[in-house]
Amino acid sequence: MRTNSLPLLLENIHAEACNQFGLGRVADYIPALAQVPPRQFGMAVALVNGQSHAVGDAHVPFSLQSITKLFTFVLALKTEGDALWQRVGREPSGAAFNSIVQLETESGIPRNPFINAGALVITDILTTRYAHLDYALLGALRRLADEPNLHWNPAVARSERETAHRNMAMAYFMKSHGNFHNDPELVLDNYCRQCATEMSCAQLAQATMFLANGGRDLGRAGQPDEQVLSADDARRVNALMLTCGAYDAAGDFAYRIGLPVKTGVGGGIAAIVPGVGTVAVWAPELDAKGNSVVGAWALERLVQATGWGHTGL
Amino acid sequence: MRTNSLPLLLENIHAEACNQFGLGRVADYIPALAQVPPRQFGMAVALVNGQSHAVGDAHVPFSLQSITKLFTFVLALKTEGDALWQRVGREPSGAAFNSIVQLETESGIPRNPFINAGALVITDILTTRYAHLDYALLGALRRLADEPNLHWNPAVARSERETAHRNMAMAYFMKSHGNFHNDPELVLDNYCRQCATEMSCAQLAQATMFLANGGRDLGRAGQPDEQVLSADDARRVNALMLTCGAYDAAGDFAYRIGLPVKTGVGGGIAAIVPGVGTVAVWAPELDAKGNSVVGAWALERLVQATGWGHTGL
Amino acid sequence: MRTNSLPLLLENIHAEACNQFGLGRVADYIPALAQVPPRQFGMAVALVNGQSHAVGDAHVPFSLQSITKLFTFVLALKTEGDALWQRVGREPSGAAFNSIVQLETESGIPRNPFINAGALVITDILTTRYAHLDYALLGALRRLADEPNLHWNPAVARSERETAHRNMAMAYFMKSHGNFHNDPELVLDNYCRQCATEMSCAQLAQATMFLANGGRDLGRAGQPDEQVLSADDARRVNALMLTCGAYDAAGDFAYRIGLPVKTGVGGGIAAIVPGVGTVAVWAPELDAKGNSVVGAWALERLVQATGWGHTGL
Amino acid sequence: MRTNSLPLLLENIHAEACNQFGLGRVADYIPALAQVPPRQFGMAVALVNGQSHAVGDAHVPFSLQSITKLFTFVLALKTEGDALWQRVGREPSGAAFNSIVQLETESGIPRNPFINAGALVITDILTTRYAHLDYALLGALRRLADEPNLHWNPAVARSERETAHRNMAMAYFMKSHGNFHNDPELVLDNYCRQCATEMSCAQLAQATMFLANGGRDLGRAGQPDEQVLSADDARRVNALMLTCGAYDAAGDFAYRIGLPVKTGVGGGIAAIVPGVGTVAVWAPELDAKGNSVVGAWALERLVQATGWGHTGL
Repeated sequence: MRTNSLPLLLENIHAEACNQFGLGRVADYIPALAQVPPRQFGMAVALVNGQSHAVGDAHVPFSLQSITKLFTFVLALKTEGDALWQRVGREPSGAAFNSIVQLETESGIPRNPFINAGALVITDILTTRYAHLDYALLGALRRLADEPNLHWNPAVARSERETAHRNMAMAYFMKSHGNFHNDPELVLDNYCRQCATEMSCAQLAQATMFLANGGRDLGRAGQPDEQVLSADDARRVNALMLTCGAYDAAGDFAYRIGLPVKTGVGGGIAAIVPGVGTVAVWAPELDAKGNSVVGAWALERLVQATGWGHTGL
Repeated sequence: MRTNSLPLLLENIHAEACNQFGLGRVADYIPALAQVPPRQFGMAVALVNGQSHAVGDAHVPFSLQSITKLFTFVLALKTEGDALWQRVGREPSGAAFNSIVQLETESGIPRNPFINAGALVITDILTTRYAHLDYALLGALRRLADEPNLHWNPAVARSERETAHRNMAMAYFMKSHGNFHNDPELVLDNYCRQCATEMSCAQLAQATMFLANGGRDLGRAGQPDEQVLSADDARRVNALMLTCGAYDAAGDFAYRIGLPVKTGVGGGIAAIVPGVGTVAVWAPELDAKGNSVVGAWALERLVQATGWGHTGL
Repeated sequence: MRTNSLPLLLENIHAEACNQFGLGRVADYIPALAQVPPRQFGMAVALVNGQSHAVGDAHVPFSLQSITKLFTFVLALKTEGDALWQRVGREPSGAAFNSIVQLETESGIPRNPFINAGALVITDILTTRYAHLDYALLGALRRLADEPNLHWNPAVARSERETAHRNMAMAYFMKSHGNFHNDPELVLDNYCRQCATEMSCAQLAQATMFLANGGRDLGRAGQPDEQVLSADDARRVNALMLTCGAYDAAGDFAYRIGLPVKTGVGGGIAAIVPGVGTVAVWAPELDAKGNSVVGAWALERLVQATGWGHTGL
Repeated sequence: MRTNSLPLLLENIHAEACNQFGLGRVADYIPALAQVPPRQFGMAVALVNGQSHAVGDAHVPFSLQSITKLFTFVLALKTEGDALWQRVGREPSGAAFNSIVQLETESGIPRNPFINAGALVITDILTTRYAHLDYALLGALRRLADEPNLHWNPAVARSERETAHRNMAMAYFMKSHGNFHNDPELVLDNYCRQCATEMSCAQLAQATMFLANGGRDLGRAGQPDEQVLSADDARRVNALMLTCGAYDAAGDFAYRIGLPVKTGVGGGIAAIVPGVGTVAVWAPELDAKGNSVVGAWALERLVQATGWGHTGL
């Protein structure tokens, strides 16, 4: 499509999106998230040519939740390289994001870095590497999103920490298999803070730009570009998002939308259009598998109109 | 890359491929396949511009086996449309290709059309639709591959039929859940014939061209093009191949190669480069998950040299 | 208790049992069984001293169903001895009677002879041994029950055979693991006939007497006693009934009733009181796990009044 | 058998037992237990008539480990009654003692009180009830064993606590399902102390006497008998031991031995002969399922010689 018609398309999607409200439910298992007003919708597109577009609540910060698994994985891949794959797999799990069953039959090695168990291992790895992981991660995210004021929401972090029993179970289970090196309490502190990080759609589209741009961040005012990941590694991260980025609905997302994505129970979705740009969408109501109902719908609509799904990884 | 350097690249890959022999084992669970000489390698590339290139044993017919699941799925999608999804899912299974466990916990609905249980349901659907499925399927494959002499190998079909106990178990299990309509004996006859279909790499690359070309076959001598699938459906089939096309190594294939593929225990792999062309590779030695060791290596090498993995779906 | 008060106790239980009707449902997965009038209750006690007592519908024949697994297992134990344990285990499965999951993770070896998969292996073993298993089995049962007119109901056998898809699935699955030697079609014919065998409570109590009497049948008119099993083997069969005789409610039955039992979806239960006698009870309404609701209640009541549960195996 | 030949029989078993050494391995997952010299054997029989017999190392204290699950369960049954069954089941698990899989599919309710997850729930219940559970439990055990000096081994408790990651995982997992009320750290402290309790065979046979004697303890010097449990409840505890007392070898134990037992990875086994007496045996080498190899052998030998297995529950 011609990208100069993008603003109009986004407006149309925004208008239609509001008619989809009411089909899902706001995440209720984290008390602090359950209070988010459900009828919100934001969408932002950032193109590799530097242009960007935003509609609706695209500048309202929301809780990234599992979308942060993408950033911690990238950070671990940068610092650890392929040694990472000793401790976590890269196959779809075929099971719910918080399932513990495969850990028992697969010796405490989680299937991939985007299910909870895998993300906990990643955070464990980073906890070993960084004395103050929350600072290190916020610093990286601020640079990627070009937004010095990014923070994590302490009320949400605390709320998640208090109800993190299942994640604690996974951490201890992996520890019993030797695949968890730090104190689970400490790692869970870091994990819950990371999940509570807030961004707007506009910031999220910016922060993931390197994945659409061969691993290279776009230069900011007065700064040179940064090669966040090698082009090969960026392609690999996208592949992982495509096969594992939407929990146990990854196949359905690939079929309907065909883009690498990472979803979160805060209702956000980050999508990559390699060589073209990024899309971030947010709408808090979730389907039964924990993905944003209206967000997925909007991405599907966008892909059908633009043909972006055809250029995949 | 410049495609005029493709022939040289393929020659190099061919030469190196022969150094990889001996890392895997020929499929031994089907007696007739166990006799295939292991040290063979063929590779063919067909481009949407009509050019094609082939090296090694690219004109030697081999047993397609699970690669036929791609063609029967496309045939069922054409004839049944989305009604298909009532009877089979489209999620990675996270389990071995012949696992029966999920059928029990998921009411006899297989995870996707590319694991055995799912392919059996597809063949059951087509058995209802076609009085002589083997003729109908061969006819479709001959047209796609532009090769009137395609056939299935009766010795292989018989060998598979005689050892098809596990597939019979799955058929009966799905029948007990109401998700299998014909006599399992009859469907297994059709299924084993279909699996025994033989093609060369050159033919296979041709036969899958529509998936790289927006659903549209390339015209043959004196024939118009044919729109095999809509462009949207072609993209969706590619998405399914990317998430589910390599059994329980789909994630690893996506990570390393990043192309939609369908593999078979005959040692063949069909890969799609949307908008660019198709690749077929064959080398009989398999890894522990039933995928061609040297075939996967050759694809990875090709993708790294051409950057094709970056244009994905 | 004094056994001369047994008749009165049984009358009381009979009267109260009729007040329990309506709590369960007649088995509906076998069409021919679904037509059995639900509000029936029979109970028979046979003592090792030769006395016997019966109340209610204790002389009405009913479909033995899984209770026949007890008799085929005893027959196989007699003919094969401990070689049997190469092909079937003797542990509670912890899963539903028709689950196929464990077969996949445990190489096609069923957990015990009283779940469907295990009973199918037993019938496979006997099919190898006997040219006409149905005759051989009926002959054995007629002698044990001292009733020359025992037969299997052809309408029930046919009805079960036509809906035996899940059992066919298990047979083929075990065959794929080498743990099934005959044609599944043939074994299922035998299996469905065996399940359709009919007995009354009075006959069933008689037929199981050897298990209460150190393996020794009670002599009939003009016949000597028969040592059906050694005393040790009889004790072992009772142990297996206690741990595995009530599907995945074995623990609950042991806790509430404490006697070796074998239940069937026809609503019958055979119970053994080692050294004392046997109890057979029948009431067609089943609970969610496939055991007779009123039958279990009546046994619990009987055990509480007699203290029989305390003398266990 | 005539019990006056028991001493001789026990001597024979002792002599033969020493020939069985070397078939198993001392538990090595708890460092402090790994140091126990393997070639030890003790056996004690206590009869309801007050007599008792002991051979070998029957007066050497050993680590009770899972045998304490029997005592905590009895204590919880006394204090909570049937309300207990809201939080734990009473079915064999069909899985390893430390499996977490069923907790996920069964909403955090463990199958029975004798697998680790179930015993943790029991300890959680008792932790709510008793401010100082370790004192309360030791007090109860001292009274039952008639031994004021019983204690738990602090080195073993500490060693287990430091490697209790898997049990911590289960506790947190159940907490995520609302089936764990106290802080897992606190409950695990209590659990590891309880497991580290030490008794000799002679003391253990004494301490379980009430289960063979209709729930009634035998009077000690100057003390009246105590009705520890009702006769009905004692029978039920025995039933639970028979179906669930030997981990996932319960079926095999029932088949071979036929007595209610509770085993521990310290190499001890407590067995009940209802109406007759109790047997405690100890030999540290374990089989693959965590049960004492020589202990099980000795019990089987004893049962064959005495016929005790025939009087079961």
